[in-house]
Amino acid sequence: MSDRQERLALSLVAEPGDPRLVDLLRQHEPGRVLAAAKGDGTSVRVPAVWRERTLGLDSLLDSVSARAKSGELRWQCPGDADWPTALSDLDHLEPLHGTNGAPVGLWVRGAGSLAQLSERSVAIVGARDCTTYGAEAASDLGADCTDAGFTVISGAAFGVDGCAHRGAMLLNKPTVAVLACGADVDYPVAHSALIAEVARSGLVVSEQAPGSHPLKGRFLSRNRIIAALSQGTVVIEAAVRSGSLNTLNWADQLGRTTMALPGPVTSRQSAGTHDAIRSGKAVLVTNGKDVLEELRGLGAETSQLELAPLTEFDKLPPAARKTLDGLDWTRGQTVTEIASVVRLTAREVLTALDMLQRRGLVSRLGAQWILARRADVG
Amino acid sequence: MSDRQERLALSLVAEPGDPRLVDLLRQHEPGRVLAAAKGDGTSVRVPAVWRERTLGLDSLLDSVSARAKSGELRWQCPGDADWPTALSDLDHLEPLHGTNGAPVGLWVRGAGSLAQLSERSVAIVGARDCTTYGAEAASDLGADCTDAGFTVISGAAFGVDGCAHRGAMLLNKPTVAVLACGADVDYPVAHSALIAEVARSGLVVSEQAPGSHPLKGRFLSRNRIIAALSQGTVVIEAAVRSGSLNTLNWADQLGRTTMALPGPVTSRQSAGTHDAIRSGKAVLVTNGKDVLEELRGLGAETSQLELAPLTEFDKLPPAARKTLDGLDWTRGQTVTEIASVVRLTAREVLTALDMLQRRGLVSRLGAQWILARRADVG
Repeated sequence: MSDRQERLALSLVAEPGDPRLVDLLRQHEPGRVLAAAKGDGTSVRVPAVWRERTLGLDSLLDSVSARAKSGELRWQCPGDADWPTALSDLDHLEPLHGTNGAPVGLWVRGAGSLAQLSERSVAIVGARDCTTYGAEAASDLGADCTDAGFTVISGAAFGVDGCAHRGAMLLNKPTVAVLACGADVDYPVAHSALIAEVARSGLVVSEQAPGSHPLKGRFLSRNRIIAALSQGTVVIEAAVRSGSLNTLNWADQLGRTTMALPGPVTSRQSAGTHDAIRSGKAVLVTNGKDVLEELRGLGAETSQLELAPLTEFDKLPPAARKTLDGLDWTRGQTVTEIASVVRLTAREVLTALDMLQRRGLVSRLGAQWILARRADVG
Repeated sequence: MSDRQERLALSLVAEPGDPRLVDLLRQHEPGRVLAAAKGDGTSVRVPAVWRERTLGLDSLLDSVSARAKSGELRWQCPGDADWPTALSDLDHLEPLHGTNGAPVGLWVRGAGSLAQLSERSVAIVGARDCTTYGAEAASDLGADCTDAGFTVISGAAFGVDGCAHRGAMLLNKPTVAVLACGADVDYPVAHSALIAEVARSGLVVSEQAPGSHPLKGRFLSRNRIIAALSQGTVVIEAAVRSGSLNTLNWADQLGRTTMALPGPVTSRQSAGTHDAIRSGKAVLVTNGKDVLEELRGLGAETSQLELAPLTEFDKLPPAARKTLDGLDWTRGQTVTEIASVVRLTAREVLTALDMLQRRGLVSRLGAQWILARRADVG
């Protein structure tokens, strides 16, 4: 058996993401761990259930191989040219919800290279029961990030995930869906067409064997792969106890860029994103431009908060601004009146009025001055 | 002339918030600066316009005094029992938009004590042209903060300001309006009734002389007083170039708590608040509870992001969770089938099923097991 085959066998014997597998692979080669599961009598101790599962391993390998062939799935693992090395960051984390570690390998459906597609990528995840606001935001953000040359990675779920994929595919660009079931299983079933389209134009990926069911715990372990494949994760609409916050936690642990898109404070669906921003677990982003700034490490430095373009008013010298400020557009005033209101000397006011008149901002009516057009106050 | 009267005279001679006045008062007593403006031949140099304005000072004092009497305004200044000492923090800042410094005094309309009312207070400011979303958020937040014993301070403007005041007054509690015009001037005119109600139940405050117009620059200098009087400022809806962001900047300079309430990312009116949160200039808040946490200095530590209540599912031991996860609610499965799907030994699955049956979560049908009720997946 090659290393690739030993890894495949291990992924069938142990539940992918099992922390005990990660611990063992830190100390031993995959072949050694597999041999131990088969009961070769070495000193390497493996869980009893793994030993039980090796009993039917040969027939399991055959059926998996047949399913992979009919589903056009490829098995990829560390060492392959298309393997995203970023995944190995997962090997250095503590378990979260009973799962951790880089996948021993991944099943991939679609023609592209996972390493290439994930090299510049962003995860967009969020509520299944999103609002139309969340759906539109996900679709827009998916399209914006794709347009900027980033691959959108998500989970093909209802709501935000699906909209993010669709936003990317509307530009005829590849997107990557990481599933909690086998890469040949359509879950949710109503997303069969979406998943097929993702596979056609991009990639459908899973660490679960072909035909595997989407068990609850597998959504949590799947989330770590979405977070690890991408350079940053954006959460759009997440209730306080949402799975997408789990993806955000993984991204945070991995040192990836963590982002959240806010919504109305009256929306339960944005409560989790607001919590994440408020607690500093995520940076607020409002659109693709914000996301790109964060991913490029610019962030706060380029914020335009204080750098709004100067208005015509701002460009005037202080005395002219004050004078303009004291003028009315409904009635004329004398220089003395203006000087009294704005607290400048009559000479200062006259100089200012002269400049303002040349710019067409004020008009003279005999001894009185009036605004030439309505200025905005305040 | 007493120190109080000298300060009053100075507020008429110099534009309140003029940084030159602050500089002079750092070095000299108010009486000395006033004498210099009157041309007493001392070495203290004052701007020419101040000297010009002292020429008509006596009649100006008379008319101001008459207006103050008819408008029921009181003149308050440092040293008075009701003077909020927090305002002196303004004396240590750099000028912002050509204004700075603690007011030399304030005109106050209403029966309450400004020192007492501002002791536990929060400023709520925002867009004049707010959306109904912003209006409701301001009203709710005004009421929530008031209910928690904080005084709401704002600027009585259209939109967010007015709604914040109204939210407070709906609970029959005092609120404080700081105006950019004289405290006896109703600006905006359509808010005459609102301002009268604020004065009746709380306080209307201004550093501008009675009868003064709301000039553009005075909104900016007024904002520093709103920020300095309160322990924190919340911005609700602010376009990128909004005056309320100026209040936030003052609060930031003053080391007060700076907060912003997010909105839909599609709303131009929330662009400035989102910028402020994104750049770290403000903390995201969604409701009164968040604001109180920030004001009490709890902030992030009490965030509930990771502390959502445990569900029944979470309380089960891992093997029981996995087993439950592998069960279906539409068809029964044997122990061997379940064990294969969830990767547990048959013994582990049996133990788990026993526990789950006692809790009414699974049912036995001969040799098969089925979920007793629909569990949520994912």
